[in-house]
Amino acid sequence: MTEVSIWKDSEIRREDSVMGSGQKDSFGPDQLSPIGQHKFPPALTHSSKEVWKKGGRVFSVLLAINLVLLACTLVSGGAFQEVALHDYDVFFMLTIVMLITITWMLFYIFSTSKRQAAIPCKDNHAGPIWLRGGLVLFAVLTLVMDIFKTGYYSSFYHCLTVIKIMYPIVQALFVVIQTYFLWVAAKDCIHVHLDLTRCGLMLTLTTNLAVWMSAVTDESVHKAQSKNPNASTTHRMAGFRSSTSDSCPCDTNLCQIFQNGYFWLYPFNIEYSLFASAMVYVMWKNVGRLIDHHANHVHQLKFRLFKRTYFLGIVAGFLIMVTGIGVLIVYEVQVNSKDKSEAKTDQVLTMYYIFNIVCLSLMSLVSIGGSIVYRFDKRDMDRHKNPTRTLDVALLMGAALGQYAISYYSIVATVASKPRDTINALNLSYSLLMIAQHTFQNIFVIEGLHRQPIEKEDKVNPQEKDIYGLTFVNMNAVSLRVPESGNALSSTASPGLEIQTPSEVMQAVKVRTKMNWRRTFLKESSLFLLLCNVTLWIMPAFGARPQFDNKTELTFYGYAMWAAIVDICLPFGIFYRMHAVASLLEVYIMS
Amino acid sequence: MTEVSIWKDSEIRREDSVMGSGQKDSFGPDQLSPIGQHKFPPALTHSSKEVWKKGGRVFSVLLAINLVLLACTLVSGGAFQEVALHDYDVFFMLTIVMLITITWMLFYIFSTSKRQAAIPCKDNHAGPIWLRGGLVLFAVLTLVMDIFKTGYYSSFYHCLTVIKIMYPIVQALFVVIQTYFLWVAAKDCIHVHLDLTRCGLMLTLTTNLAVWMSAVTDESVHKAQSKNPNASTTHRMAGFRSSTSDSCPCDTNLCQIFQNGYFWLYPFNIEYSLFASAMVYVMWKNVGRLIDHHANHVHQLKFRLFKRTYFLGIVAGFLIMVTGIGVLIVYEVQVNSKDKSEAKTDQVLTMYYIFNIVCLSLMSLVSIGGSIVYRFDKRDMDRHKNPTRTLDVALLMGAALGQYAISYYSIVATVASKPRDTINALNLSYSLLMIAQHTFQNIFVIEGLHRQPIEKEDKVNPQEKDIYGLTFVNMNAVSLRVPESGNALSSTASPGLEIQTPSEVMQAVKVRTKMNWRRTFLKESSLFLLLCNVTLWIMPAFGARPQFDNKTELTFYGYAMWAAIVDICLPFGIFYRMHAVASLLEVYIMS
Repeated sequence: MTEVSIWKDSEIRREDSVMGSGQKDSFGPDQLSPIGQHKFPPALTHSSKEVWKKGGRVFSVLLAINLVLLACTLVSGGAFQEVALHDYDVFFMLTIVMLITITWMLFYIFSTSKRQAAIPCKDNHAGPIWLRGGLVLFAVLTLVMDIFKTGYYSSFYHCLTVIKIMYPIVQALFVVIQTYFLWVAAKDCIHVHLDLTRCGLMLTLTTNLAVWMSAVTDESVHKAQSKNPNASTTHRMAGFRSSTSDSCPCDTNLCQIFQNGYFWLYPFNIEYSLFASAMVYVMWKNVGRLIDHHANHVHQLKFRLFKRTYFLGIVAGFLIMVTGIGVLIVYEVQVNSKDKSEAKTDQVLTMYYIFNIVCLSLMSLVSIGGSIVYRFDKRDMDRHKNPTRTLDVALLMGAALGQYAISYYSIVATVASKPRDTINALNLSYSLLMIAQHTFQNIFVIEGLHRQPIEKEDKVNPQEKDIYGLTFVNMNAVSLRVPESGNALSSTASPGLEIQTPSEVMQAVKVRTKMNWRRTFLKESSLFLLLCNVTLWIMPAFGARPQFDNKTELTFYGYAMWAAIVDICLPFGIFYRMHAVASLLEVYIMS
Repeated sequence: MTEVSIWKDSEIRREDSVMGSGQKDSFGPDQLSPIGQHKFPPALTHSSKEVWKKGGRVFSVLLAINLVLLACTLVSGGAFQEVALHDYDVFFMLTIVMLITITWMLFYIFSTSKRQAAIPCKDNHAGPIWLRGGLVLFAVLTLVMDIFKTGYYSSFYHCLTVIKIMYPIVQALFVVIQTYFLWVAAKDCIHVHLDLTRCGLMLTLTTNLAVWMSAVTDESVHKAQSKNPNASTTHRMAGFRSSTSDSCPCDTNLCQIFQNGYFWLYPFNIEYSLFASAMVYVMWKNVGRLIDHHANHVHQLKFRLFKRTYFLGIVAGFLIMVTGIGVLIVYEVQVNSKDKSEAKTDQVLTMYYIFNIVCLSLMSLVSIGGSIVYRFDKRDMDRHKNPTRTLDVALLMGAALGQYAISYYSIVATVASKPRDTINALNLSYSLLMIAQHTFQNIFVIEGLHRQPIEKEDKVNPQEKDIYGLTFVNMNAVSLRVPESGNALSSTASPGLEIQTPSEVMQAVKVRTKMNWRRTFLKESSLFLLLCNVTLWIMPAFGARPQFDNKTELTFYGYAMWAAIVDICLPFGIFYRMHAVASLLEVYIMS
């Protein structure tokens, strides 16, 4: 009898190994209960279909690469006036791609997901409610932007190609269908139409990235026209296309409102595309995946914001936020005013830098504090396979590169430039602090994301095992080699209860207090960092460009090179902030 | 007794889970032999030290990111004449970084690796002999280049900063020590000084990447001076720094030889840096890793080139190679000649494109053929953790992006440009075929790299199990639930021998022939592709730039934009070829 169970054991492991290494991970050690009773995942029989996951993925990745590069070529070519490509070439391509993607999404919703045994399991880490909530919020704002855009282009439809009016309409349709699609399907681990679904998801991802590229470029071009020192000359590289041709002036009041409106709403459209991309990527990683339901616990979404108030973090954060918005408004008004003088610009730049230096210093200190608290926190690391988290970490590290690059170019320019005035000194400190803050915050967030949620951890933390004796024995007796009560299965009796002397109870209370203090600190920290990141997202997203208003880098690198650096790197920097907000929210909930 | 063994079992799994998910992988199912005798890896006790691998890695990655970005800033700033950065700023930084790296490597060789239990296991996949051989070859050529460079700079040492002469000398020292270091340590899975080693390796990686960037930029600047249509004007962006200032002319004969010599040897230095980077990255991935010795089989390095001659592939490949070199020489001579005319340039461009189109078409066909053969080949996929292979695949896909991007820009330009002449048509086909060839070759190589080597697979291929009855039973009886001969351990007797009737023997011979045919085809294909890739590496590495000689893209995008695209993307394209050669060699050996 025992013999047979051993054979069975070895065979299951063999079956396990038929699947890709990725799937092997998901059958963690806690899948196999110690007395050899194996819980079969519901769809183990599918493993034969999925002969080689990597092979199935290569094709869809190749499709995505090719489409992204084509979009990249058209978008970058369309951005320059002297290149014979126009923005409507990009719009034309995007419209077609969006229509194909819409078709696939409808097919997925009405056919693929309705098939028998199509979705044997769901990934509870994917598409958490705040991500989907954020997606819907940004989707609504994108729809408003599309209305504005349609209105703007309709103002002079007599001298435009029809595709320019078609594009926002198709985009609105795309946004509605995609938001619905992601709302219902974000957690799916699909097990039918594997290759088609992979390609469809990669197509969706590519479409979102292409829309993002197009929006970012459009915005940069718009910004560049107001910042370029020699916009009137026909300088190569600096000769960005103007958003409207001279024969079609946007001079009515309504048209101006539409135009300003849609440029103000661009940041939300940009964030929408990136949120959707991240969710689609996780769906793609989950295609054909089998999930161990033990490991796949959900974080209990109890926002205890109102039960225990985390006062300090929120107040300090809101203070920073309000100040930040005030600084931004003053800055924008001053810099964009008609009668700006050198002295006034210097004044607002000084204000802007000082605010940022204070904010970044505080954030760095809080991040370092949080990391130190984590050092003393002996909670176990959560090592279960979790594509959402892997992506989060990769995006945090990757997106930070954008701001890093800008900072390094700034540092080199300020160090090498000769007139060492106050603005330069401030700029240098700002750039250095920017690097430090990104580094420390990343370390803090990555540590936080890899912790077990506290709710579960309370019970099995090895540090507290003498205090929580009862729970510990209950949970772990079955896994000890020599069970306490002789029979492993009957050890649900409470042998640890008698040994709790008064002094131990005191100690328990002390440890509890210490733990609460730690938890409070982590929660306060993450809330504070969250609000600061929102502030630092608002500032560049709504137009603050000290990189151009401060002339040091502009004269050091020349307009063309510096504009290229900022225009390519800043979108990643802005995305970093929004992504950090999402990650910090997760850290807050898990602390 | 059996009870205890079960408990032990569950405990080992628990211990397993203490280590990072990466390490969990390395204990594959074949680690646990079916009768429950567990082979402990030699250094399982180290797992407590390595609390959380990801955390230990973050710091070294952050270090690397910062250093790479700083190098990138200096190198890119130094490339432009009007930016107040000079190449000696870059040299100064590189010299310091190289000296630090040398110190660390010496420390590693003489202290870290000598510690007790420092290297409990080695990764046999890492640093295969041909990679190390290639490294030594490129190292020798780099040393020659350094001698030329020292000679060149010494020719006018009176008007140069001392760092320019120091740099090649320090580089030579660095190359010697690094080559020795990689030769002896490439396979190490180090288990002491974890954090220091990670940082040291990341520093080494960064240094190599910085040297690569500097070399690529230097070469691009050199090329740009000969290709720029308006080099004499003081055009922004086009104003690359000249390699020697006017006050220090390189007019002696010796100096000219030195200069030309070192520019001809640059491609080898570039490849050296990339080879070293790849090997260092694998070492970094292997820090603190525990390896299951069962999974970690070595490919038997039997070059059966001389036992069974694979004639067709080699002959066809050499034919392509010789033709390619001929085409390159004619092309270079024509394009660089003083009295070149429009017609003559068109003629050599036509020749160049036709050769490439033929070569790429053949390569695509062979790759498709190989992939089809793999479809019918039922060999098992090799799914063991193997950082070397993961890196290989990532690099193949990543480096192909460079050529993809150039091709897409070319396609858009040729399609949108008006005069549709022969050159344009050829350029379009060339770009399209380039994309197709990269795609098909990547699919072929990735499939090939993931196969089990044939030597091992011959025996357990499930397709042939009725023919190789004897072997199959021997190898697998122990893992069947109900062993054929009742007692699993005594089934080494040969129960399958009697059932081999003559018709079955005939069938066995047939299948053998079929398998041999398949193997021959795969070997021929990979050899042919290998030689073709060498040819396509030689051409751009030694200076063929049809992208600039053919004026379509130059006029469509403007010099600045097109030069930026080609100068950034082409180094990756060139690296792709060399990397594909290494991967194809591995596919050849494994087929």
